[in-house]
Order: sequence, then C-alpha cells, then structure tokens
Amino acid sequence: MWNQTELTQLLRIDYPIIQAPMAGGSTTPELVAAVSNCGGLGMIGAGYMQPEQIREHIRETKKLTTRPFGINLFIPEKITVDEEKVALAQKLLEPIKQELGMESSLTNVEFSNAKDHFNTQLDIILQEGVSVCSFTFGLPTKEVVSRLKDKQIIVVGTATTVEEAKKYEQLGVDAIVIQGVEAGGHRGTFTDVPNSLIGLMSLIPQVADEITIPLIASGGIMDERGVLAARLLGAQGVQMGTAFLVTKESGAHQEHKHAITQSTEDTTVLTRSFSGKYARGLHNHFIETMKVHEEQLPDYPIQNTLTSSIRKEAGKQNNKEWMSLWCGQSPRLSRQQTVKELMTNIITRADDLLKQMNV
Amino acid sequence: MWNQTELTQLLRIDYPIIQAPMAGGSTTPELVAAVSNCGGLGMIGAGYMQPEQIREHIRETKKLTTRPFGINLFIPEKITVDEEKVALAQKLLEPIKQELGMESSLTNVEFSNAKDHFNTQLDIILQEGVSVCSFTFGLPTKEVVSRLKDKQIIVVGTATTVEEAKKYEQLGVDAIVIQGVEAGGHRGTFTDVPNSLIGLMSLIPQVADEITIPLIASGGIMDERGVLAARLLGAQGVQMGTAFLVTKESGAHQEHKHAITQSTEDTTVLTRSFSGKYARGLHNHFIETMKVHEEQLPDYPIQNTLTSSIRKEAGKQNNKEWMSLWCGQSPRLSRQQTVKELMTNIITRADDLLKQMNV
Repeated sequence: MWNQTELTQLLRIDYPIIQAPMAGGSTTPELVAAVSNCGGLGMIGAGYMQPEQIREHIRETKKLTTRPFGINLFIPEKITVDEEKVALAQKLLEPIKQELGMESSLTNVEFSNAKDHFNTQLDIILQEGVSVCSFTFGLPTKEVVSRLKDKQIIVVGTATTVEEAKKYEQLGVDAIVIQGVEAGGHRGTFTDVPNSLIGLMSLIPQVADEITIPLIASGGIMDERGVLAARLLGAQGVQMGTAFLVTKESGAHQEHKHAITQSTEDTTVLTRSFSGKYARGLHNHFIETMKVHEEQLPDYPIQNTLTSSIRKEAGKQNNKEWMSLWCGQSPRLSRQQTVKELMTNIITRADDLLKQMNV
Repeated sequence: MWNQTELTQLLRIDYPIIQAPMAGGSTTPELVAAVSNCGGLGMIGAGYMQPEQIREHIRETKKLTTRPFGINLFIPEKITVDEEKVALAQKLLEPIKQELGMESSLTNVEFSNAKDHFNTQLDIILQEGVSVCSFTFGLPTKEVVSRLKDKQIIVVGTATTVEEAKKYEQLGVDAIVIQGVEAGGHRGTFTDVPNSLIGLMSLIPQVADEITIPLIASGGIMDERGVLAARLLGAQGVQMGTAFLVTKESGAHQEHKHAITQSTEDTTVLTRSFSGKYARGLHNHFIETMKVHEEQLPDYPIQNTLTSSIRKEAGKQNNKEWMSLWCGQSPRLSRQQTVKELMTNIITRADDLLKQMNV
C-alpha cells in the first residue's frame, strides 16, 4: 500500500505522512528533520516567526536532513483595532496577570504592516530554499504562487470546505490540506460559510469528488487506522499535528505534551479566547475564565498579541491552566514516543490492517 | 471483504449496513423491508410512535420481508415544564403560524407519563417480535435489557463518547452505535460532557480501543468509501441515515429529499429550536428565525410538541422553510435512487476500492 502516488512523487517523499506546521514552537529543526529522515515530510510552522528566525530554522533543519521538508506561512489579514474590544480584553486579562505574579501593564497593540511582514518572510524562504510552502488563513496572490513555483517550491493550500478547496485549485496550487472538525489548533477557514466544522468522514469524499489535485487529510489522525481511512475516503496523504506534537523531538512544552497524553476525546473545545480566531485545544482555566466574553474579544491577531505574555509566563511557571494547549479530538491515541517509533508503527501496521480487511 | 463478522452473525445479516431508525415518518415498512431484503438491516424509527402504530409497522414490515429487521425507541426523560420558556416559545411560534395561515392557538403541553408510554411501546415490541431493538437518548434499565434478551431480541445502544459507550457495554448490550459529529438528526448524547461533538475519524478508534462488543459507526457515511473507512478505523459496521432518507422507498417528504440532494456540506447546522434537543439539519427560515432565542426555548420533548403543528402544516404546504430538514454532513454524496441501487453500489464498489489500495 505504500507504492508511490501522485502526492509522494510531487513531494519526493516515501510515505504520504506530513507533520503539521504547528506554529508556536513545536516544530524544532530536530522534529522537522526527524520526520523527513523517516520518509515523511517535516514542516516548519513559521506563521509567527520573525524573518531571521525563519532563516535560522531552515538552515538548522538543513544541517539535520538532506531530504525534502516544508514550511508554512499565515496569509495576512486586514487588522482593524477596535479600542472597546481591546479595553475589554485588557481588563479581563489583568487578574490573570496578577494571579501569575506578572507586573500590571497594558499590552501595546500597534502592528507593523502585516503584508510587509509576510513579504519579508516569503523573501527569506525564496532565498534559503525549501521543498514545500503551505499557506493557512487565506489565499496567497497569484504572484506569490508564481514566485514559489519559479524556484521549484511546491505550493500547498489549507481548506475547510469544498468551496475553499476549489478556490485553491483555481489559484493553481499543487495540493490541498483539508482540515476536518477533528483538527487541533487554529481553524483554517477563510471564507464566510455557515458551517465549516465538517468531520473528515464527510469532508474528504465530498472534496475528492470536486477536486483533481492531491488532497491531504488533517484532523484527529494519529495512527495507521486514520491514515488508511483517509486514503480510502479519497485523500492521498495525511497531515498529523497532535501525534507529532507529543513526540520526543517536538519543542512543545512538557506540560502541554503531558496534558494531551492524559486527556480524553471529550475534553477539547473550540475557543477564540487565546488569539481571536477559533482554535481547538484542551479545556483549562483560561478558556473557562474567558468563556462568557469570548465573542466580544478582539479579532486575530490582536487578541493573540494581548495574551502572548500570559501564555509565555504560564509556560515558564509550568502552569498549564493559562497556556494554549492545542490538541485534536484524538488525545487518547497519543503516545510520547520518538518520531521514528511513530512513523515505523504506522508504516508496518498499515499493511497488516489492510490484509485483515481483505480476508 | 464481506466475510461474516461478529456483527453480521449477531444480526443475521449479509452486509454490516444498517438503515438508521429515523423517527418522523421516513422509515416506512417499504424502506425497512427493502434494506433487509438487500441483506442489510432495516430499522423502524418508533421513538415518536403510538403503541398501536408500532404494532402496525411491525406487522406491515413482516408482510414485506422474512429477513431480520429492527426497531428503535427513545429512552424517556424527566419532563419539567418551565412555564416561562413555554410562553416564550408560544410567542415566537405565533407569527410563523400566521405566516402559514394557521389558526392562532396555544399548544397544549400536558404530557402523559413518559415512562408509561415507553413501557407500552416496549410491550408491543415484545409481543410482536423483532430481531433488534436499539435505544437512543439514554440507557434502558437492566430489566428492559433482560426482557428483550429473553425473547432473543438483540439489544443495541447509541453513544457519542467513549464514556457513554462504556456505560452501554457495562449494561450488557450486544452492540453499540457510535454517533459522530457528522450525523444528521438528533444527537444521542445522554451524559453531561463538555464536548460530545466528535468526528468519526477520532471517535471510532478511541471507542474501539476501550470497548470489546461490536461497534456500528454512524454519521456522514453514504457510500463504499465511508463503509470501508469506518471498518478500518475499528467499527464492524455502519448505520446510514441520510443516504436511506433520500431513497425512493423512504417516507420522507419529497421537499426534504430534494433539499438534501441540492445541498452542500457547509449548509447543515446544529439546532435545538425544533425539539429542544440538538439535532443536525439543513439551515432554513425556521432555524434562522429562532436562532437568537435558541438557548431559552423549552427542553425536549416540550419544544418538539410546541412545533409539531407548524412542521405538519409546512409539510402539507410543501414549504421546506418551516420543516425540520434533518441531514448529515454529506449531502453532496446523496442520490435519489432505490435502496437496491444504493446497497448494490456499496457492495460491489467496496471490493474494487480495497483492491486499488492494495496495489
């Protein structure tokens, strides 16, 4: 079952298993290189990175692997600061800062031009060179796609509905990650749809019937069962976040990893309290405290900036109650193991599982 | 791949494909018998039925098939009438009644003893005899399970989380339907969990790791892709609602069937406005109109009783905007075909699909 497909040929990998480009520190060069060295595709989550950090991460990763790896950027959104919402958020965050023993201080919400920042990020990627560049939270311009393709960089989009996938296909990208409701972290939704929270059992075949380029399923996939199911539903590969987040090589906080491996499927919730954009994570004090005001908080990335110091301090104090504990809907399937153990288990067990089905 | 499994042996069927027991008129004797005659398991959705209707349905179905079929009952809940909520609901429903040209009248919300009603339903089932009895919205008592088993009736539960599945296994049922977030119609959740909206990609393997009795996956499954994926994830069979609802033999309203086949994956929503209990259906005027007050409406089954005349009148007028258009998350995969066409397509195509994967 691990014969080459259009997707593995496109990405020049052995197994159609992609490590999700989790922004926020998990995707260390060690993690990214380990995944690629096992025949999958490691991905740097560069959405929040400064340009020089991106350069450093690419260079460090190249020291650790000669195989293809990728990077992910966030498409910049128009930032409109709503002073009232910011004031409410600052007021709500103040007691949390006190609880953590932080100095009382209003966070500055002045933003440099998001588009300029994105273009600088992109320039570094083009200078340094990677195999794959994926995008989340929107569509890049045709010019951006062309610039990447001119450098032989494979371009991948992220969609949560059939319409979003169609927009990416029309743009001329090479493959599309389709994100199911099961996925941990931020929702990639970028169109105004009544409901973009679609389970992969429904989403994969409905997208597959409308799209001709390779699809990569993401959300709740942790082992050979999910990989095989995704392929039978119509995806050529999978992108796994939580499964890689808890590996030894991941840079995620130890409290975060531990919380995931101790959690159950019914403890993740969607919240916009951390960043202003809906994301799935383990329920904790922060989510509970902000819950009633959730809809009144500033939009992304403003709220993200406002909560940044709290999350950082909570991490330092090993206090998971005020951290963002992103996690998909399958925490019971998570194992603290090495990337090699995770990959080897999937690769060897998938064949056996398929044989059982053929009996 | 269609060799007998524990589940098919238990249910005495050829293919582990179960037609969901949709309450509300879809599961005509013609539909139920057609599914069973094709080697699957037809199910009567008897939750809302009067005892004599149940008797009639069982007898009519037996005239049309000699093969096993089943029936589903709702576990009665404690009914507490909140007069304020009822008054709000009556006030909100009044303009809709006017729009439909109905006479203004307050609906009576006196309820006979729900437990007595359930026991009478059960007595008829025991008298008439069916092969399978499944339950939704809670756990039957041990005594109910024993009475069914004494009559060689297979008992099946409905769960939406690992904990709920464990409760059913401990009770001693024979198999469990696990309902994913993708499912159309009412949520079967019966415990107080922070999040019971789990995608099947996550739910099936996590339940399968904890439960030893056969699992039946339900939610968004419409064709051979879903059936195979569900089995690889750890379920022995599937229960399909929407796919059967739109078949020729189903008793669902023609406008309902038509609306589903014209819809997309992003148009279903969860609403409690029709019945007081969350259910997934196609978005329409009724859901939109009630949306802001949704949380303040009476609980199930009170709200269900209050909206009943509106839904009935809307059906008579072929006006889908005020009907409950239950639908899972895969409407793009729905086809108006016969039960035989649906079943044959799944059975023949699944083998081909599995062969492709083995290349």
